Amino acid sequence: MKKPGYTDLVPVENEYPDRDYEINISIPEFNCVCPKTGLPDFGTIYINYTPDEKIVELKSLKLYIIKYRSIGIYHESVTNKILDDLVFAISPRKIDVIGEFNPRGGITTIVRVSKKK
Amino acid sequence: MKKPGYTDLVPVENEYPDRDYEINISIPEFNCVCPKTGLPDFGTIYINYTPDEKIVELKSLKLYIIKYRSIGIYHESVTNKILDDLVFAISPRKIDVIGEFNPRGGITTIVRVSKKK
Amino acid sequence: MKKPGYTDLVPVENEYPDRDYEINISIPEFNCVCPKTGLPDFGTIYINYTPDEKIVELKSLKLYIIKYRSIGIYHESVTNKILDDLVFAISPRKIDVIGEFNPRGGITTIVRVSKKK
Amino acid sequence: MKKPGYTDLVPVENEYPDRDYEINISIPEFNCVCPKTGLPDFGTIYINYTPDEKIVELKSLKLYIIKYRSIGIYHESVTNKILDDLVFAISPRKIDVIGEFNPRGGITTIVRVSKKK
Amino acid sequence: MKKPGYTDLVPVENEYPDRDYEINISIPEFNCVCPKTGLPDFGTIYINYTPDEKIVELKSLKLYIIKYRSIGIYHESVTNKILDDLVFAISPRKIDVIGEFNPRGGITTIVRVSKKK
Amino acid sequence: MKKPGYTDLVPVENEYPDRDYEINISIPEFNCVCPKTGLPDFGTIYINYTPDEKIVELKSLKLYIIKYRSIGIYHESVTNKILDDLVFAISPRKIDVIGEFNPRGGITTIVRVSKKK
Amino acid sequence: MKKPGYTDLVPVENEYPDRDYEINISIPEFNCVCPKTGLPDFGTIYINYTPDEKIVELKSLKLYIIKYRSIGIYHESVTNKILDDLVFAISPRKIDVIGEFNPRGGITTIVRVSKKK
Amino acid sequence: MKKPGYTDLVPVENEYPDRDYEINISIPEFNCVCPKTGLPDFGTIYINYTPDEKIVELKSLKLYIIKYRSIGIYHESVTNKILDDLVFAISPRKIDVIGEFNPRGGITTIVRVSKKK
Amino acid sequence: MKKPGYTDLVPVENEYPDRDYEINISIPEFNCVCPKTGLPDFGTIYINYTPDEKIVELKSLKLYIIKYRSIGIYHESVTNKILDDLVFAISPRKIDVIGEFNPRGGITTIVRVSKKK
Amino acid sequence: MKKPGYTDLVPVENEYPDRDYEINISIPEFNCVCPKTGLPDFGTIYINYTPDEKIVELKSLKLYIIKYRSIGIYHESVTNKILDDLVFAISPRKIDVIGEFNPRGGITTIVRVSKKK
Repeated sequence: MKKPGYTDLVPVENEYPDRDYEINISIPEFNCVCPKTGLPDFGTIYINYTPDEKIVELKSLKLYIIKYRSIGIYHESVTNKILDDLVFAISPRKIDVIGEFNPRGGITTIVRVSKKK
Repeated sequence: MKKPGYTDLVPVENEYPDRDYEINISIPEFNCVCPKTGLPDFGTIYINYTPDEKIVELKSLKLYIIKYRSIGIYHESVTNKILDDLVFAISPRKIDVIGEFNPRGGITTIVRVSKKK
Repeated sequence: MKKPGYTDLVPVENEYPDRDYEINISIPEFNCVCPKTGLPDFGTIYINYTPDEKIVELKSLKLYIIKYRSIGIYHESVTNKILDDLVFAISPRKIDVIGEFNPRGGITTIVRVSKKK
Repeated sequence: MKKPGYTDLVPVENEYPDRDYEINISIPEFNCVCPKTGLPDFGTIYINYTPDEKIVELKSLKLYIIKYRSIGIYHESVTNKILDDLVFAISPRKIDVIGEFNPRGGITTIVRVSKKK
Repeated sequence: MKKPGYTDLVPVENEYPDRDYEINISIPEFNCVCPKTGLPDFGTIYINYTPDEKIVELKSLKLYIIKYRSIGIYHESVTNKILDDLVFAISPRKIDVIGEFNPRGGITTIVRVSKKK
Repeated sequence: MKKPGYTDLVPVENEYPDRDYEINISIPEFNCVCPKTGLPDFGTIYINYTPDEKIVELKSLKLYIIKYRSIGIYHESVTNKILDDLVFAISPRKIDVIGEFNPRGGITTIVRVSKKK
Repeated sequence: MKKPGYTDLVPVENEYPDRDYEINISIPEFNCVCPKTGLPDFGTIYINYTPDEKIVELKSLKLYIIKYRSIGIYHESVTNKILDDLVFAISPRKIDVIGEFNPRGGITTIVRVSKKK
Repeated sequence: MKKPGYTDLVPVENEYPDRDYEINISIPEFNCVCPKTGLPDFGTIYINYTPDEKIVELKSLKLYIIKYRSIGIYHESVTNKILDDLVFAISPRKIDVIGEFNPRGGITTIVRVSKKK
Repeated sequence: MKKPGYTDLVPVENEYPDRDYEINISIPEFNCVCPKTGLPDFGTIYINYTPDEKIVELKSLKLYIIKYRSIGIYHESVTNKILDDLVFAISPRKIDVIGEFNPRGGITTIVRVSKKK
Repeated sequence: MKKPGYTDLVPVENEYPDRDYEINISIPEFNCVCPKTGLPDFGTIYINYTPDEKIVELKSLKLYIIKYRSIGIYHESVTNKILDDLVFAISPRKIDVIGEFNPRGGITTIVRVSKKK
């Protein structure tokens, strides 16, 4: 699958690169399209990372996330892909991406992906 | 007891086998039959696993779980059996199955089983 | 549709018929079968009533409710039907039946039915 | 059934009889014996009343409630009986007694009784 | 504005037209487009109604709601419009539509509309 | 019992006397002394009133409430007395005082007193 | 006191003037200055209204509310004043303004003001 | 003190002895008698264990727990004693017993005891 | 500062000295006096300890805590002092004391102190 | 950026320097100005530290925090800066500063910074 996000995420200078600190972002308004049914799937994306030289600009992250509204993609794939795109854009020291998806047919799924430099 | 599930759980390809990540599934609509009284027992099944080559297809998991509605089985056994069937079907790197059962006679029980490859 | 319940609900003598009082019963372990998909639908049934000469025996109510596990019936119909069967069995002064059903496709429904003598 | 409580509840003088006001008492540590099984049934008793000339002394209410630990009595009866005994003892202008009983077999019951002078 | 919904909402026969009863539907996965910014707005739509001859078929309601994902419309208008479309489709005895929208700029809005026959 | 509060509560001018509006005050840090045991009793005092010509100054209310730390008084009496003292000081159009007291011996009590002009 | 808001609140056309409906707005990020101490006071402002010919534009409401950050004003006055300014700007059929202020010295206050046309 | 429980707890065969897994049992309906006052003390008992060859049969555990209703015993002792009796009966690989007791005089106590094989 | 508590805390024999176990005590009705303002400060004291030869008698702990109602002392000091007094009285193997104090001026403080033998 | 706080934070003597203990402070009434939009940003600041020779005086901390109401600063910077100013003022053995900021555009951010001596 082509990476839809790699030009959209805007990196900005981390003003405190000498210190390990953590940024937690939660985006409860995530939705993409189920590749099987064509119907929208909703969920919350959590991004927790320790920046290195760059942090992600929040407005660009919002626009990046909105693009998924028209993309057909599975829960496991979208969570892994958001991690890959963020690693490409800002190369953090450590990052977790968690996708918490609304129940379908009485079953709820959460996908948790991590990467360290 | 014969394994009712081993042909039902459909494995699908894990698209990110090079990375350890975790999938959490919760199924609050579980019920089976109490072998003593013949009455239904209700609970929630939690499945947390790190996939290896395969992930479990969710629709097949739902149909597998529904079969327990007519099976007489104890809490300890059903939790262990769901773990065994999932290990058989998708051979995950690591898996926890938790069965949280509704109170009977004022007593609530939870059974927690784990397996690592 | 044939009334499955009218012989099962056991009425017992109300010991305080001279006083209007209310009995609230909640049954979070309800499930029936969706007539469209054949898959089980889960929910909670709330029964609130003011008895007249009779109250409903709880064990018989439990067994009556369990019968719905294998009956294909819509949410609106099952809630109305439980009210009709209770009115037939114990003829209360006043009764509400509320069916609160688990989300399907991201949509939750509650059905509220009432009857006064 | 003989009234076990009528000598135990100690009435004390209401210091503000010219004013209608409400006293709410909750007793989450209630238990009595199920007449069918002989096993203890647990619940919470709520008493809400507007006193007339008398209020109930709390220590005597506690001792009165403790007596039910060894009495076999149904949920509907015990709630009505506590109301009758309080009316006998302190003759309030208005009183509600609510018995909220722990689930048995997955079914929870609440009984609500009221009386006005 | 043209009514986008009036051909989509499928009415089905109410099996209990002789009785006033209430159906509560909640749809937490609503989103439309802000006419000013072009960005998606998220919220929950609550529909509470007393059916007359017809009830609304839930699958058609879901597809109707999904259409708003690409429609630019204000919070006040969309809530009123959903009520108008439901009145057109199933002509209920009584209906409330409540639109509860996610905070923007620290401000949360809820719009509540009602209609009686 | 002598009124300890009537000189302490400072009335201030209500700037909007032409309009009926409501002021809700909650004081979770109330404590007085149990007349029987000499031990402190804790609770929360809620005061809801519609002012007439005067509102109560909050600092003076706080100091008034602190005085009860060394006064032996029953729950029913202290709630009625706070109402009487506020009526004496600011003569509101309508007032409720609610005393919610911490459990003693597993029993919780709430006292609710109201007065209209 | 001079009305700081009357030029700031922008009225916009109500598209559904023939129907009584309600708009609920909550603003948890309110703060003004305590006239006594000069320190900031925090709280939440709730505005519930039934529009007539006009509704209030939300961006202008946000800017109007932000102005209070540098204004010294009492809780009772600010709640009444916001109501007066909204009545001046959009003349609603019915309006409630509720100011819920954070605890100071262990005491929490809420002010509730209403107006009907 | 004589061990009241050692003949009552019925061990049953653990069907999965080759695997370490955990069973969590909660019993919110515990009560015993305070040795000082003779009044009942209420609480919740939590039992978490990893079985070896045996698991405890739940009905026998319930009857064992009910016996404490007439036994005078301190919080610290009863929690330690339940652990000792379970170790005697089923000899688990690991066990925690937690007694969480209702507040008396405004003070709540929890006792936590553990044992490993 | 003189130690007010060292004669008040009554040690009693630990019946299970051969086993490490934990006792958790919470006292939500703590209050002392602010040395600066002379006004009462409220909070909750949590005491978690592993007893050695002695446990603390709860009634004496309650009376010890009540003494602080008239003592002027800072949050940091009172939490450290309660730990010191308990260590003096019962010499536990391990102890934590946590003082959680109510907000003043919008700021909440918690103080956590530990000691191991 | 110039350090606005370094003269404002008042250090006071730690009375228990020989013991490692923790102080947790939460300040839910934080607000600063967004450098991009000029509008206020709200959040909660949590400060957890182990003091060395000094603790921070709370009134001075409150005044220090209030200064941010008129300072334009990003979330990542303000959290790091509060940590730096506290380290400058009281040189703690260990400190965490957590800035939890209110959602903007549906996205919530938390920044966590730590430092050890």
